[in-house]
Amino acid sequence: MRYKLTLEYDGSRFHGFQIQDDFPTIQGELEKALIRLTFLQIRVYGAGRTDQGVHAFGQVAHIDLDKEWEPLKLKFGLNHYLRKTKISVLNIEKVEDTFHARFGAKEKQYLYRIINRQAPLTLDFGRAWHVGYVLDADIMHQGAQMLVGHHDFSSFRDSDCQAKSPFKTITKASVTRQGEEIRIIFEGKSFLHHQVRNMVGTLKLLGHGMFSLKDIQTILEAKDRKKAGPTAPPEGLYLMWIDYT
Amino acid sequence: MRYKLTLEYDGSRFHGFQIQDDFPTIQGELEKALIRLTFLQIRVYGAGRTDQGVHAFGQVAHIDLDKEWEPLKLKFGLNHYLRKTKISVLNIEKVEDTFHARFGAKEKQYLYRIINRQAPLTLDFGRAWHVGYVLDADIMHQGAQMLVGHHDFSSFRDSDCQAKSPFKTITKASVTRQGEEIRIIFEGKSFLHHQVRNMVGTLKLLGHGMFSLKDIQTILEAKDRKKAGPTAPPEGLYLMWIDYT
Repeated sequence: MRYKLTLEYDGSRFHGFQIQDDFPTIQGELEKALIRLTFLQIRVYGAGRTDQGVHAFGQVAHIDLDKEWEPLKLKFGLNHYLRKTKISVLNIEKVEDTFHARFGAKEKQYLYRIINRQAPLTLDFGRAWHVGYVLDADIMHQGAQMLVGHHDFSSFRDSDCQAKSPFKTITKASVTRQGEEIRIIFEGKSFLHHQVRNMVGTLKLLGHGMFSLKDIQTILEAKDRKKAGPTAPPEGLYLMWIDYT
Repeated sequence: MRYKLTLEYDGSRFHGFQIQDDFPTIQGELEKALIRLTFLQIRVYGAGRTDQGVHAFGQVAHIDLDKEWEPLKLKFGLNHYLRKTKISVLNIEKVEDTFHARFGAKEKQYLYRIINRQAPLTLDFGRAWHVGYVLDADIMHQGAQMLVGHHDFSSFRDSDCQAKSPFKTITKASVTRQGEEIRIIFEGKSFLHHQVRNMVGTLKLLGHGMFSLKDIQTILEAKDRKKAGPTAPPEGLYLMWIDYT
């Protein structure tokens, strides 16, 4: 029996999604909760490995259980054992054996939050990138449009990236300002390692006037990580949803 | 020279606004930062005493300084010494000697956030009231309208309240649902101790079907704290802004 789990978490507590021996991770906490609930060692297959500090409002994972579970009971039980973590199981549904959290994902949305003001953060500390000088969200939006489409994203690819191909397709990008908050959205089937954070780090330099719109095109075409901006910090990044239909 | 300070803070770190000997408070941290910046003991006059756990996006206070300070320099200096707290000075402006943070306030807005879903909170833990069963935000909105106007709010007044009169005027109230979040807004010149949280605790029972709209009217007219609902927890409450014009 395969079950699809939709997860929310405060990533600041964890060393990323993927299980590690000596550090708390989302996968690690979920597998511990599953042992306590089922007395069995059950593998959790995540849709993707969010980095240390990255948050999720709609991460997806799947698990296989020998015994049939009522999804609501499974959800209550897992949330009970997860209650001291900052991980919450939002939804569980029974799915076909062909469902795969990672390989079946058709579209993902990431949100990146910048708080653009001089004053230090309080309630948003650890939940957004604090940028103290004024950024031009309109030009950042125009720059983001140049990244939409099927491209070789080598310029935005971490050197640790294990993807076979540097080609990815971005289906939607937008940058909007809501008062002092700048919200950057990227949608696509999948992304290279650090791709979103590297694109955000580059768009931030565009918004600051360090890059022009023409530079964004040049950077993309250079296929050279050294040409783009630095990696934006993880705490502004949120995995919002993953679509499988 | 009088200065008006606009403040943001994560109230979960503090035992309320008002200074206390043995516990961290907003006023206490501000006065400590002022000593470090000016080498003088300076009193901070807050617009109101937010309770332990209550947050602010726009608290206001005033201070008097003998020396003239450039407001921006004062703001940078205070934020420097506040950097390890979760208090941020958003704005400082020089004001007339007649300005008074508390007595000059013409209108305040409070927001109360309820996250209405079964799954435990992660990113909103400590920043909203988690209510697991479905609340009807529409009827809560109707109930909130019955509280608008000039009334004797004894039914929503804490027994510790030191106000001379139980009469207050609510100029605006609204309850809106945005997905799983219910946002309750109250505006008025001033409120009794725990008034907003007691009104929210009562509206929550209305939204759950434990009270009817008629009950809200009866509760208001009873002028008896025992008739209303329990006090909503502090972590959902935000002081949004204070208007002085």
